[in-house]
Amino acid sequence: MKGTVFHGPRDVRVERFEDPSLKTPEDAIVRITRAAICGSDLHFYHGAFPIEPGFVLGHEGVGVIEEVGRYVGRLKKGQRVVVSGLVACGGCFFCRRGQPSQCAESGSAVFGYGKASAGKLGWLGGEQSEAVRVPMADYTCYPLSDAIDDDAAVFLADILPTSFFGAVNGNIRPGDTVAIFGCGPVGLCAIMSAKLFGPAEVIAVDSIAYRLELARKLGAYPVNLGEAQATILARTEGRGADVAIAAVGNEGALNATIMSVRGGGTVSVIGAFGAPSFNFPIGHAFGRDLTFRIGLANINAHIPELARLIERGALDPRPLISHVLPLDQAAKGYEIFDARTDNVMKVLLKP
Amino acid sequence: MKGTVFHGPRDVRVERFEDPSLKTPEDAIVRITRAAICGSDLHFYHGAFPIEPGFVLGHEGVGVIEEVGRYVGRLKKGQRVVVSGLVACGGCFFCRRGQPSQCAESGSAVFGYGKASAGKLGWLGGEQSEAVRVPMADYTCYPLSDAIDDDAAVFLADILPTSFFGAVNGNIRPGDTVAIFGCGPVGLCAIMSAKLFGPAEVIAVDSIAYRLELARKLGAYPVNLGEAQATILARTEGRGADVAIAAVGNEGALNATIMSVRGGGTVSVIGAFGAPSFNFPIGHAFGRDLTFRIGLANINAHIPELARLIERGALDPRPLISHVLPLDQAAKGYEIFDARTDNVMKVLLKP
Amino acid sequence: MKGTVFHGPRDVRVERFEDPSLKTPEDAIVRITRAAICGSDLHFYHGAFPIEPGFVLGHEGVGVIEEVGRYVGRLKKGQRVVVSGLVACGGCFFCRRGQPSQCAESGSAVFGYGKASAGKLGWLGGEQSEAVRVPMADYTCYPLSDAIDDDAAVFLADILPTSFFGAVNGNIRPGDTVAIFGCGPVGLCAIMSAKLFGPAEVIAVDSIAYRLELARKLGAYPVNLGEAQATILARTEGRGADVAIAAVGNEGALNATIMSVRGGGTVSVIGAFGAPSFNFPIGHAFGRDLTFRIGLANINAHIPELARLIERGALDPRPLISHVLPLDQAAKGYEIFDARTDNVMKVLLKP
Amino acid sequence: MKGTVFHGPRDVRVERFEDPSLKTPEDAIVRITRAAICGSDLHFYHGAFPIEPGFVLGHEGVGVIEEVGRYVGRLKKGQRVVVSGLVACGGCFFCRRGQPSQCAESGSAVFGYGKASAGKLGWLGGEQSEAVRVPMADYTCYPLSDAIDDDAAVFLADILPTSFFGAVNGNIRPGDTVAIFGCGPVGLCAIMSAKLFGPAEVIAVDSIAYRLELARKLGAYPVNLGEAQATILARTEGRGADVAIAAVGNEGALNATIMSVRGGGTVSVIGAFGAPSFNFPIGHAFGRDLTFRIGLANINAHIPELARLIERGALDPRPLISHVLPLDQAAKGYEIFDARTDNVMKVLLKP
Repeated sequence: MKGTVFHGPRDVRVERFEDPSLKTPEDAIVRITRAAICGSDLHFYHGAFPIEPGFVLGHEGVGVIEEVGRYVGRLKKGQRVVVSGLVACGGCFFCRRGQPSQCAESGSAVFGYGKASAGKLGWLGGEQSEAVRVPMADYTCYPLSDAIDDDAAVFLADILPTSFFGAVNGNIRPGDTVAIFGCGPVGLCAIMSAKLFGPAEVIAVDSIAYRLELARKLGAYPVNLGEAQATILARTEGRGADVAIAAVGNEGALNATIMSVRGGGTVSVIGAFGAPSFNFPIGHAFGRDLTFRIGLANINAHIPELARLIERGALDPRPLISHVLPLDQAAKGYEIFDARTDNVMKVLLKP
Repeated sequence: MKGTVFHGPRDVRVERFEDPSLKTPEDAIVRITRAAICGSDLHFYHGAFPIEPGFVLGHEGVGVIEEVGRYVGRLKKGQRVVVSGLVACGGCFFCRRGQPSQCAESGSAVFGYGKASAGKLGWLGGEQSEAVRVPMADYTCYPLSDAIDDDAAVFLADILPTSFFGAVNGNIRPGDTVAIFGCGPVGLCAIMSAKLFGPAEVIAVDSIAYRLELARKLGAYPVNLGEAQATILARTEGRGADVAIAAVGNEGALNATIMSVRGGGTVSVIGAFGAPSFNFPIGHAFGRDLTFRIGLANINAHIPELARLIERGALDPRPLISHVLPLDQAAKGYEIFDARTDNVMKVLLKP
Repeated sequence: MKGTVFHGPRDVRVERFEDPSLKTPEDAIVRITRAAICGSDLHFYHGAFPIEPGFVLGHEGVGVIEEVGRYVGRLKKGQRVVVSGLVACGGCFFCRRGQPSQCAESGSAVFGYGKASAGKLGWLGGEQSEAVRVPMADYTCYPLSDAIDDDAAVFLADILPTSFFGAVNGNIRPGDTVAIFGCGPVGLCAIMSAKLFGPAEVIAVDSIAYRLELARKLGAYPVNLGEAQATILARTEGRGADVAIAAVGNEGALNATIMSVRGGGTVSVIGAFGAPSFNFPIGHAFGRDLTFRIGLANINAHIPELARLIERGALDPRPLISHVLPLDQAAKGYEIFDARTDNVMKVLLKP
Repeated sequence: MKGTVFHGPRDVRVERFEDPSLKTPEDAIVRITRAAICGSDLHFYHGAFPIEPGFVLGHEGVGVIEEVGRYVGRLKKGQRVVVSGLVACGGCFFCRRGQPSQCAESGSAVFGYGKASAGKLGWLGGEQSEAVRVPMADYTCYPLSDAIDDDAAVFLADILPTSFFGAVNGNIRPGDTVAIFGCGPVGLCAIMSAKLFGPAEVIAVDSIAYRLELARKLGAYPVNLGEAQATILARTEGRGADVAIAAVGNEGALNATIMSVRGGGTVSVIGAFGAPSFNFPIGHAFGRDLTFRIGLANINAHIPELARLIERGALDPRPLISHVLPLDQAAKGYEIFDARTDNVMKVLLKP
């Protein structure tokens, strides 16, 4: 079969390699029908996050069950499923508390993230390919109804649960003002997710025009980064946002997010922050009584409700798709996504 | 000044009487610019709830502050306000817990509900008039921004907070299926309120076609009472609704609401149930692990967030207005509303 | 092996029958080392709940794993476990939401409750015996550390999670006043459970002196049923209890519980109410804004935290044990428990 | 009257000055009967926090109402009250949300904190004196019942609500393991507060023996700072604490607190952190899915429930009192508290 192999910074190639096979009785083999490139894949692409050359990338995928191990109880050959980017057992201390991102059995392993992430699960790569071995398949695959097509379903593998997790962490209440810093794919998904909690307004901050325009179409109030603080204050009677979500991973943006929140408000950080530490304005936070939350999303726990929302038409991520390419053109997909040209937003791959 | 006076069952008349005046330093006088007729006013109109002849009806009103007592700290002459149907002090044990409907100082008094409700506050009548004395004005009036017009604002006095309270009590979570029994004005407001909590679907139940059509326009899935249970099961994989809201006050509808909920779900009852007791299916409820909530809404506590939602366009109750009549035609308003003719939904009065 | 067999009202006998064996790959066989008689067993004993003669009673048990099916992943031969009274799969819609009492796979089956409860699981009887077959063993058995002895652990099978569930449902907040009606074993466990939520005071109501004395020893303020309402009002500045828990299953007690609660408070009902319906004071409840919760407890979901509390000495149910009898004397145990003589509280059986 | 005047680092003197008088109709004058020295007062004492020489110190006090302004509705001359360290209006956006520490009307002013904190309220000093002017008295004073003596009540002014706020922010659930770093007066109060939420165990960390001994007496498991991480892991099956509370304000301790928490856990910081910024381990926090909360406590909002807990004997802070000195010996009180000699814990002053 074929998959998107990392060879080095800015060098990914679709290549042939051995078909995956069951290794434990809890595994399933899923034939991929749609995959996507995630913002965090660019960290590998840039060489910022280390990964072994030869590793297959990708942790967003939808497909069809081809084979299941004998302990797999909830899945059948031929069933359409989304494969959560995160492997989790579903039954440990953490999974039972709705925190599969800390799963004690899987060690929080992510597909296509390299050997360190895969840990004791062995080779765990990647969904930008024709097929994938899924450990702990019962809780890592989620069966799809016909009411969700592949294009929508692939958003359930990571980006939508991640943005939803960010909104949940924000503890948004009806009538709140939510500020979202960053209108890339995950920021736009965060707009959709935040709106599920009934805010009076979502203020979307970015500095790229086509992204702000997409934010506006999704119902947010778009504002340029330079005018963000003034606008947020003006639209909250001088208080600041009730909740602010950081959907960009640099120190400047994170500081701006923290500064935009009212006293007693919440800052929720989505996704990967590059550096290991951050100069946190703790004096400000003390005076303002802030809650600060950051983490790898509990993807598997959030898929069921998000799937129902898509099924009933209450949520539709497909307007974010800017490109659907054949798997063979994965390298081109990375290039476009990285360059932010061509009004790129979410890039899908079709094996 | 003039107001809508109760004379007997199906006999209300707009008549002249003495202007209201301040009685305590915490009072305000509000000149009414828009009022509304509430479903619960029909209970008086039918003679089902007793009220003294001569009492002025109405507990939904918007207006302008004309005069304030010397302890009133947050209001000024000339300010536009909505007057909560419920008088509350804002500072007692209950108000501090966000439960003004149990206010220990006001005794849960409601405008235009007769002497028993007014209790120690004395004459407390009613907002379907040219002016009204508002006790505990600081927490009973809420200042309006220009972004909310009178037609929208009058919904803040009772019907919108009541339906929102019903949705809050339902503890709706994103992805839930919510069933709402009854598509009168409060049921339709409950659809809007429920959608603030991100349900996958709101199933709206009624047996009058134009009401179901309005429900559909508000984004609900409309269904006739006769097919309600089967439809709800079919749309929830056989489980039942996660949350069901009863927006009608008869025993049959309440039973249907209870039966529509899945195991571990919540039944939330809005508004006034006619009879003092109800034959509760406790064996069923035990097996199903149900939560059952009913109460007079905490109106004053919910006005601020609902006002912000209207200001930012996230909520707009005005499509529910079917009639705006001059105050002088209040009697005709009651007639139409009672007869359910003329596709009547919400009837507003303009003094 | 031997077990406590139901022959008819007030006629239970310890008899020999065939050893249990694995029927599905998810089963385990547990050799029982300690069992208990539950208040709900008395319903069978009285003939009030129908059950087939020949059925083995008991849904509270602790023991040692003797054999496991090949899909059982979390248990090993020789491990000490508590067997939840309730069988649940751990992975369905309901179990994932922390509501195993509604488990879609087990059909909410309870050990020793007769054929109707066992449903598709087949014969599911009972833990007042030497051994038991446990379906869905991974989520129905919970491994015990050495820090919990059998006498304490047997409380984890039902009575302690049930009372804890009642306290959780009450939504008790620090500083609250909690009234508990009924000081039988489950009521006393409810005192202990309620105290985990930091109430200012637990007022315990009963009419039997030795039970009230035990309540007092557990830190509650004991009061006779006749003086309950007056005392609760006097100790809450005239408001009523913030939360009231009904730990008795008759209409009079349930009414008293409802009447004891303040406006905006919560009524939580534990355990089985005999009759199928109840004359609910809905007019009162509407005026008082009440939350009413009733259901079969989510036992399996609450065992882990309760086990940790016992391990660390923060909770100790053993003072409730009044009798420990050899299994052979089970009939005598039922007799004493039923007669309420001999200061009986919790009766344990030792196979 | 007399009060404790700041003259410079390590130089406080009890001196005579003019009696306080009403300045606004919402003020009250309170004659102080008991005051206390807070850990944060030592920051002034050390010169670490700037304050004007001549300012009267103290924000923990209990006393008797001597005079009230004409808008004060809930207080009467002769009434015993605790004076919250924090002035708050009770009616603004923030106070209505239970966040008086962000009060828009008072500007979060604290007694005895100097001109900058007092802001527009003018001179606001301090409770280590014979009398004090209390602005916004209705929500800043809380009437005391006879069931609370002055020694217990003075803990309600700041230290107990602050530690309770820290426990609330930790979102402790029954069965959790809570680690508390720092066993000074606020840390010990945090042990008492944490126990209101039903933890399986509170692990108390410090390096001073007599403090750890007090922690043990309050029911915590005491451990030396050097062995903290290993002990916490050993007592949580290698996971880490569910919740950790930092009750010391230095970078090392805060880092240790963060490192002690399990994946998906919460870090709650109480009280004043000296430096304006902090090198936050954001990479670690992302991988571990952490919630981090810090802020000035919402004192006024928490006093009622804490008062009820003391009244009913469910909470008793008096074992923390190590010294009760006459007001005239305030300087000696500061000296002892600063030196940590004489097994000093909480120092009270008696005017």
